[in-house]
Amino acid sequence: MSTANQDDWTSIAAKAQTRLINSIPSDWRIPPSKLPKDDELNVTGFPAKCGILNDFELEITESLATDIVGRLAAGEWTAVEVTTAFCKRAAIAHQVTRCLTITMFDDAMKRAKQLDEHFSKTGQTVGPLHGLPISLKDNFNIIGKPSSVGFCSWALDPMQEESSLVGMLRDLGAVLYTKTNVPTAMMIAESVNNCYGRTVNPLNRALTSGGSSGGESALIAMCGSPLGVGTDIGGSLRIPAACTAIFTIRPSFGRFPHFDARSGLAGQESVASVQGPMARSIADLRLWSESIIGAEPWLRDPKCLEIPWRQVQLKPKLKIAVLWDNGIVTPTPPVKRALKTVVEKLKAKGYDIVDWKPDFHQEILDIMAKLFLADGGKSVRKILEPVDEPFRPEMEPYANSPEMTVYELWQVQKARTALCKKYLDRWQACEGLDAILGPTTPYTAPKNGEFKHVGYTGVFNVLDYSAVSFPTGIHADKMVDISPSDFKPYSEMDAVTNKDYDAVAVHGMPVSLQLTGRKLQEEKILAITERVLADLA
Amino acid sequence: MSTANQDDWTSIAAKAQTRLINSIPSDWRIPPSKLPKDDELNVTGFPAKCGILNDFELEITESLATDIVGRLAAGEWTAVEVTTAFCKRAAIAHQVTRCLTITMFDDAMKRAKQLDEHFSKTGQTVGPLHGLPISLKDNFNIIGKPSSVGFCSWALDPMQEESSLVGMLRDLGAVLYTKTNVPTAMMIAESVNNCYGRTVNPLNRALTSGGSSGGESALIAMCGSPLGVGTDIGGSLRIPAACTAIFTIRPSFGRFPHFDARSGLAGQESVASVQGPMARSIADLRLWSESIIGAEPWLRDPKCLEIPWRQVQLKPKLKIAVLWDNGIVTPTPPVKRALKTVVEKLKAKGYDIVDWKPDFHQEILDIMAKLFLADGGKSVRKILEPVDEPFRPEMEPYANSPEMTVYELWQVQKARTALCKKYLDRWQACEGLDAILGPTTPYTAPKNGEFKHVGYTGVFNVLDYSAVSFPTGIHADKMVDISPSDFKPYSEMDAVTNKDYDAVAVHGMPVSLQLTGRKLQEEKILAITERVLADLA
Repeated sequence: MSTANQDDWTSIAAKAQTRLINSIPSDWRIPPSKLPKDDELNVTGFPAKCGILNDFELEITESLATDIVGRLAAGEWTAVEVTTAFCKRAAIAHQVTRCLTITMFDDAMKRAKQLDEHFSKTGQTVGPLHGLPISLKDNFNIIGKPSSVGFCSWALDPMQEESSLVGMLRDLGAVLYTKTNVPTAMMIAESVNNCYGRTVNPLNRALTSGGSSGGESALIAMCGSPLGVGTDIGGSLRIPAACTAIFTIRPSFGRFPHFDARSGLAGQESVASVQGPMARSIADLRLWSESIIGAEPWLRDPKCLEIPWRQVQLKPKLKIAVLWDNGIVTPTPPVKRALKTVVEKLKAKGYDIVDWKPDFHQEILDIMAKLFLADGGKSVRKILEPVDEPFRPEMEPYANSPEMTVYELWQVQKARTALCKKYLDRWQACEGLDAILGPTTPYTAPKNGEFKHVGYTGVFNVLDYSAVSFPTGIHADKMVDISPSDFKPYSEMDAVTNKDYDAVAVHGMPVSLQLTGRKLQEEKILAITERVLADLA
Repeated sequence: MSTANQDDWTSIAAKAQTRLINSIPSDWRIPPSKLPKDDELNVTGFPAKCGILNDFELEITESLATDIVGRLAAGEWTAVEVTTAFCKRAAIAHQVTRCLTITMFDDAMKRAKQLDEHFSKTGQTVGPLHGLPISLKDNFNIIGKPSSVGFCSWALDPMQEESSLVGMLRDLGAVLYTKTNVPTAMMIAESVNNCYGRTVNPLNRALTSGGSSGGESALIAMCGSPLGVGTDIGGSLRIPAACTAIFTIRPSFGRFPHFDARSGLAGQESVASVQGPMARSIADLRLWSESIIGAEPWLRDPKCLEIPWRQVQLKPKLKIAVLWDNGIVTPTPPVKRALKTVVEKLKAKGYDIVDWKPDFHQEILDIMAKLFLADGGKSVRKILEPVDEPFRPEMEPYANSPEMTVYELWQVQKARTALCKKYLDRWQACEGLDAILGPTTPYTAPKNGEFKHVGYTGVFNVLDYSAVSFPTGIHADKMVDISPSDFKPYSEMDAVTNKDYDAVAVHGMPVSLQLTGRKLQEEKILAITERVLADLA
């Protein structure tokens, strides 16, 4: 067992946080008097005015990943310049959003120097991600660094083996420089835990950056990372991406290497966790996807599928089904309006638009909840117990569910497969259907502590469909996005969501939507999103 | 619950067997006096001399599937002629090996007539399997017919829905005419159950035809089917194929549609059951594989992977690793000799041959056993109980294992994935490795009741690797295949296997071997087998 046993969880949390702050060079630390005041909600402009970054560093960090690798490959920028800029900006981002768990700035600088030396000697890049700083969700393992996954008992234990993804990214030329915050066990839709505390949304710090990849989303929205890797078991890539107006793709299981990332529910396979990129453009998702799959992850990850990146030819007139509402939690007014606006634009552009009913969504989500809780929270409890860490209130179902037997699990898995079949039949019955368009979440981003419904994403985890979350360019407007006075809730959760909705609080927040393709249609759903974005522009 | 409840298992078994025999037209029934005597062991020649088949029918039934579809597509043979011949020969095969559970001869003849009408009207085939009779393992569901899966309680209950495969085969033009025997729950390596009894090996009726797809293997070896579909969770395609010198491919999960076939362990996913073709030539496996995948099974089966049939280009010099022995059960002398002979021939042909140690095989097999027994046999017990059917002695572990909790299952799944990673790393470390060559089973075919070790196949189920079992053309020879007098067993099971080995009893039996590729390399392992067969010829 870990040396952490000797401490209780509170002292570990204090140590982990201190170590994190101390790992930031003092020049990059902002004195409390210079930090934005608590009521300064949008901190995305802070890096430009805090005095730590020069103009070149601001230019670098505000560039897209695709442009950065282009500049590096052209010899216009060095890896050291790029890495320095992002290390600094990540440090700044953390100090205003608490988005990091681990920094690896020294290692990153060494690595950047090596890459520059290689490039100047050979004139060649190491790979398609040469010199690109990539941030990682906390559960990707790096030798010598802890992977806390939001647990105090794991927060001071250095990992002995690295995740396969880490070696692959290294071979592709990436620079790994930081890991980002998550909720306990990565099973909450906000990024809050007893060790590192709460990550907030840099667009509005009263709101959540989402979860579980919400350290990533905050960091990327702060331009503290050009590209990050998160994971998704019920919406954990798409929810934080939507809360912060960035892009992500949730691939089907087996496309991107993931089997040896750390999990709070290790060995759980009934709803497969997957990993994917998060970035500020769709082109960056493509760069990452093509690079990773080009590196043949099936040679390193026994769960990966030997499917190369495929060329897709979209038909001229796309058929899109619109999921207006899942019949469980009504999208809040800005999300409703954004969806309507986007659909109208696509109709005007000649898309074949049909409605999509939420048939089987409730049944699928009921099954998802059962599968997550199938071990009665025992996996989580066994990680909490050694340091007496309590269950967080958001994790109440894990604290209080009975453990299933294997026979019971098999019956639930059987029911899940039957629902997957029904859904596939629905898809096929809608002749020529290319994608489903709908909300990523019912919210723009809710206030911290108020994210309640993951149903718009979770249903597609159970189905294992490919999905992109993308910002629409539409923002909440307190003047028009008013909840109807005659609102009729579907459920208690819907009533609470409607009551929580605060048009003033979310005013100006961007709205994202989700485009979903069938299983293993990553290439297609990326291409569809690209076309939709072009047609919305 | 089923109407079968009213009966106990023995009366159901009697009814099911009577119904089966009565479903065979009286003209095709062989009077007891004309049946081969019990000591007539090889009955493969019986169809030609029993007087039921004319010369044309013998020619049809002794043709390969690939030739049959060619003749049909050329208008040289009609579907009615072909179907009639195979219905008759299947009826004969059953009377000497007990290989069937269900006949559908009338339906098949109607279907054949329709196909012929279509062809004569349009000059076109319905699909690439136009008019080809295909036999199905008992667990594929056909509306109105029971899928007993070796259980008495299911033996008289007609199914209400058909398996996806059935509809696909129909669309491809196939004629379904019979279903074949399996062991209880399909979890024994011989085809024996309390309802339909025991299927025997037509090459030598004192020996087993293997299991669980051993009704298929017996039927195909009797030329009572040109092509059958079986399933494989621990060797259930490859073992019966090897026992009867026919060909099969065990695909990786998700390649061929299977999710809604009936299972004795429904909802079990930790070691995935897959289905595949069994036939008398490698070309027939290719015909079936290309036809099924060409029909896009991922549009019907939610678990299928959207991977079209891919072209592969083999390198000129193949690198083959030889698994001489798994260190658990020593291959019996004819298998050892066949492997050595084949390896020598391949070396002479310039293959790059290396040795392959059985590292991790025992650990992987231990995990497989745990995963099969994870529900403590509850699934099987719940099917046996309504009619008071006892556990068969071969199923003793299912009767007496404790049920795991979900937490325990997750730990085993985690350990399984770690072993899959270690094995993949081994494969990659053997630079340029194309395939592993080894025994399919330790036996040619053991005596009925003596099949004990499924380790040579099962290890690749856990790994989910693609594998072909093929007959080598080498036969057991009592003069040379003598067990060494100084035999040193690895284990009790090895000692028993050596003791059971009877050179005289298996004299003349064919030996098969297994070629295994990595996960999802169905195209490659078929192509490798084709080349190996050409080089052995």
